[in-house]
Amino acid sequence: MRLALAQLNPLVGDLAGNGARILAACHQVAAQGASLVVTPELSLWGYPPRDLLLRPSLITQQGVVLQQLADALAEELPQLAVLVGIAEPNGAAALPNLFNAVALVQAGRWRVVARKRLLPTYDVFDEQRYFCAASEPSLLELEQGGRRWRLGLTICEDLWVEEELQGHRLAGADPVAELLPHHVDLLLNLSASPFGQAKVALRQSLAHRAATRLSCPVVYVNQVGGNDELVFDGASFVMNPRGGPDAGRAVVCQLACGREQVLTWDAAPCAAPSTPHPDALLLTPVPEPLEQLFRILVLGVADYARKCGFHAALLGLSGGIDSALVAVIAAAALGGERVQGLLMPSPWSSEGSLRDAQALAARLGLTTQIAPIAPLMAGFDAALTPVLAGPPAGLAAENLQSRIRGTLLMAVANQQGQLLLSTGNKSELAVGYCTLYGDMNGGLAVIGDLYKTTVFALCAWLDSPAAGPCRRALGLPADGELVGQAIREKPPSAELQPDQRDSDSLPDYAVLDPILRRYIEHLQSPEALIADGTPAELAHRVMALLRRAEFKRRQAPPLLKIGSRSFGSGWRMPIAAANLEGRLRS
Amino acid sequence: MRLALAQLNPLVGDLAGNGARILAACHQVAAQGASLVVTPELSLWGYPPRDLLLRPSLITQQGVVLQQLADALAEELPQLAVLVGIAEPNGAAALPNLFNAVALVQAGRWRVVARKRLLPTYDVFDEQRYFCAASEPSLLELEQGGRRWRLGLTICEDLWVEEELQGHRLAGADPVAELLPHHVDLLLNLSASPFGQAKVALRQSLAHRAATRLSCPVVYVNQVGGNDELVFDGASFVMNPRGGPDAGRAVVCQLACGREQVLTWDAAPCAAPSTPHPDALLLTPVPEPLEQLFRILVLGVADYARKCGFHAALLGLSGGIDSALVAVIAAAALGGERVQGLLMPSPWSSEGSLRDAQALAARLGLTTQIAPIAPLMAGFDAALTPVLAGPPAGLAAENLQSRIRGTLLMAVANQQGQLLLSTGNKSELAVGYCTLYGDMNGGLAVIGDLYKTTVFALCAWLDSPAAGPCRRALGLPADGELVGQAIREKPPSAELQPDQRDSDSLPDYAVLDPILRRYIEHLQSPEALIADGTPAELAHRVMALLRRAEFKRRQAPPLLKIGSRSFGSGWRMPIAAANLEGRLRS
Repeated sequence: MRLALAQLNPLVGDLAGNGARILAACHQVAAQGASLVVTPELSLWGYPPRDLLLRPSLITQQGVVLQQLADALAEELPQLAVLVGIAEPNGAAALPNLFNAVALVQAGRWRVVARKRLLPTYDVFDEQRYFCAASEPSLLELEQGGRRWRLGLTICEDLWVEEELQGHRLAGADPVAELLPHHVDLLLNLSASPFGQAKVALRQSLAHRAATRLSCPVVYVNQVGGNDELVFDGASFVMNPRGGPDAGRAVVCQLACGREQVLTWDAAPCAAPSTPHPDALLLTPVPEPLEQLFRILVLGVADYARKCGFHAALLGLSGGIDSALVAVIAAAALGGERVQGLLMPSPWSSEGSLRDAQALAARLGLTTQIAPIAPLMAGFDAALTPVLAGPPAGLAAENLQSRIRGTLLMAVANQQGQLLLSTGNKSELAVGYCTLYGDMNGGLAVIGDLYKTTVFALCAWLDSPAAGPCRRALGLPADGELVGQAIREKPPSAELQPDQRDSDSLPDYAVLDPILRRYIEHLQSPEALIADGTPAELAHRVMALLRRAEFKRRQAPPLLKIGSRSFGSGWRMPIAAANLEGRLRS
Repeated sequence: MRLALAQLNPLVGDLAGNGARILAACHQVAAQGASLVVTPELSLWGYPPRDLLLRPSLITQQGVVLQQLADALAEELPQLAVLVGIAEPNGAAALPNLFNAVALVQAGRWRVVARKRLLPTYDVFDEQRYFCAASEPSLLELEQGGRRWRLGLTICEDLWVEEELQGHRLAGADPVAELLPHHVDLLLNLSASPFGQAKVALRQSLAHRAATRLSCPVVYVNQVGGNDELVFDGASFVMNPRGGPDAGRAVVCQLACGREQVLTWDAAPCAAPSTPHPDALLLTPVPEPLEQLFRILVLGVADYARKCGFHAALLGLSGGIDSALVAVIAAAALGGERVQGLLMPSPWSSEGSLRDAQALAARLGLTTQIAPIAPLMAGFDAALTPVLAGPPAGLAAENLQSRIRGTLLMAVANQQGQLLLSTGNKSELAVGYCTLYGDMNGGLAVIGDLYKTTVFALCAWLDSPAAGPCRRALGLPADGELVGQAIREKPPSAELQPDQRDSDSLPDYAVLDPILRRYIEHLQSPEALIADGTPAELAHRVMALLRRAEFKRRQAPPLLKIGSRSFGSGWRMPIAAANLEGRLRS
């Protein structure tokens, strides 16, 4: 049986458009002789549809689109069957009243053939808000090439049942174990699994474990593309069981990371396992982590802009490393000629900053404009002096400079129809070293999930010879510096006071970031850090800063999630709560 | 048995402080001879604790605080038992690994006596993110006054099992039905049920239904106070069953709306039901809806400010009805002398606007300052003209004025340590008739869940003689106009262009608001509206505006939720999605 893995990039909520995308993929693979097309989880909706799932009219429209797809297949590709991810109404009055399901669409008809068992309701996932968990495993029997195929069907989290690989798992059934007695020929998994570091290897390990348990190949089809904060990397594959007929190669079909791809694969009836060998040899080599990260950020920006209808982007270029990195990502995503940098020097900006920003823009082919803010600083001082009995001072004055720049950027973006990209990193967002309605302004916080030390590392990689092929592939200049040594090596500064450095207010990022990681990603307490040697004052101060910046993060733009715990929809903290001492710029 | 209903106002995450609050309530009622104190759901944490529940160190701290409470009771009040809402670790490796539970704390010890069955995971609620559902009903036997009392224990949603009263219910057990065979003497419900219109009556109807099914009184103890977007009204009560011994009075104990209160009630062994009578006669009269709404908004502002550590507030006073209403609410919440109004006229502001704003401030006792924005408009035009080859125009120019004001407000609030209140209403937020980083600026969107027509109605009520007693009780001037006819009756205008009116860009609010209600609260489609007579162009235009403003709402400040579906944490819509045509100010 020739299967097609359709790794598609849907537009969320565009039922008709996504249906058309699926039909186009069917045409493509039918010409190659495929008989069954597998699409990602909720492929008709795009993942995550979020509260669009609550609108009954869209559920009705889904039925219409499914029937149109079935009719088109009947007319144009009567031999082809396709598995489509849908939201199935369960007819109950009690809530939630949907299943996260899979429909088999074929020759004028469709029917539900699988329902999801394990519904992720952690981090960014809210599936129990919308869906009921199914109580039975899903089996599909298909007649193909004179043979009856038994397919086990699972949906994303249904495969995530290996506590010791994952660290933890969702309470509930083990859908893989429940398929054992059914002796399936293939296990299919329709996924929408967002990018995360080490996620490609983890998914393959899970699939390999399932393949080995069931003694059959696992066909894993993942969504690709950026949808708001989530970037789906695709990287779909077919995994053989340990010691299968294709010994030494567990991954027998591998799709691309980060782009749409539709590939066919020929399933053969399962042979008995032969020689076992260690997992490590079986998996696809994971791409270099920094390259993978860079490509994901580029995809996230490109898709967010495209899916929101923007053709161009704007950002403030300070001469610092954060805006430099965002400029590089934006140039790779949209083309340098569609990215504009606005330079907004103040009396506290160093000469080097302006020069470095212009040199960077020249390397990337960005257009730039200069709008000095000193006259506006004087204008606000004049307007505020009667109100405050003196000009604003201290943090209020620092915030004001940032807000003047934020206002200039929004005026330019509004007038020119550009997407404003904000340039803050995760370390700043964590401790509140950023200005709400100022440098936080933008439609997308491109590096809002990168700690400052990761920003340094990514820029160092971009400027290294190792990045040459990737830079070339993404249309960036392949030779010489890109970010540039001057930008990479200057001490971080917000330049909101004369001779200001980040280190005046914050610990060195090499000290701060590990503390933040332990608080944020590993949920550790100040006490745990102190027990490990962090000075008590520092541990408590960082925790207080983190808590106190909650109100800023609540109003931050969406960021591109790349880590395990990000300041986005998966970060749900109260604002009016205990531990509110300490504060930086607001 | 003398029970105490402890309707407490916790600070979220302040385990030690909330424990102390519970102990203080115990002292208060022990003097009155109570033997069992009932506190609200998760009373040790404050509801909703959100992701604080994910921090293991806080779970550990909870154990310490519980033991401290038990020790204090042993020493100071050895006869008293207290039911405390806690998050109980279930010891499992799989997630989620907590129960939403109740501990009985008494004489040096504590033990879990109840676990929640129905876990709301809809709207603003995320309980399945944190909690497992318990599979058994919870019974507690207590020896009191020589008698063995059988208490049924339920937690909040466990009582919400009457589909035809609620419109819909959560799938799952019926915890009330499962208690039937146990012949309980009392049903206790520990709740954290936020305010909603008609919610007081609904809760009482549910309790009355449960009391009647179980033939025993229901003791309903609700949290009170504002926690971020949610305002808990309290209004705890004891409800007798239909036709019980106290026929004609179903509510036998009623606590206040909107403030902490601890009240005792004497439970008597249950008699057999006697004459039935209609539900309508049994319930507490619901307070006048507009008064109730006003008091909730005042409580929401007062608690948000207090719990975030602010003693004073600032707002922009435009002379329009929205900022006028917010000024009245803020004056009632904090005292007029702690509220400052900033007037920021532009060349497009009418003379009446300034005059009306100043008269309002005088009535409320606010301090005011004037900061005209014309010089800053000219300053930005000068800064932007070289960048844009001309000054900003159209929507970009409108947004710019709003952002100049937003920046002035933040500078003043930052310098003076005030909470900035934003003044936009739900109709504006729905269609995007507001400026991100401009008039949307603030720590709290006070009326962000009030449609414009509700703003009109609430202001008309405030100016009516009927509001006199409420105004007096809240320390506002009791006589004469408060908002004022001039402000109430002027045509709505953003005053961002000469002679601009909202009706230039939007349908009349009397037309717009019912459409928005049907889209937002009732999840209706444009097609359903068209079928009911709404012009097709209008229906589609409003829907497009609503979808297109998603990116603004994502960055909006928290609002005070008063409706059934609000633009807060319960509104989870994608931004980069289908149907993105149309746009107003951005």
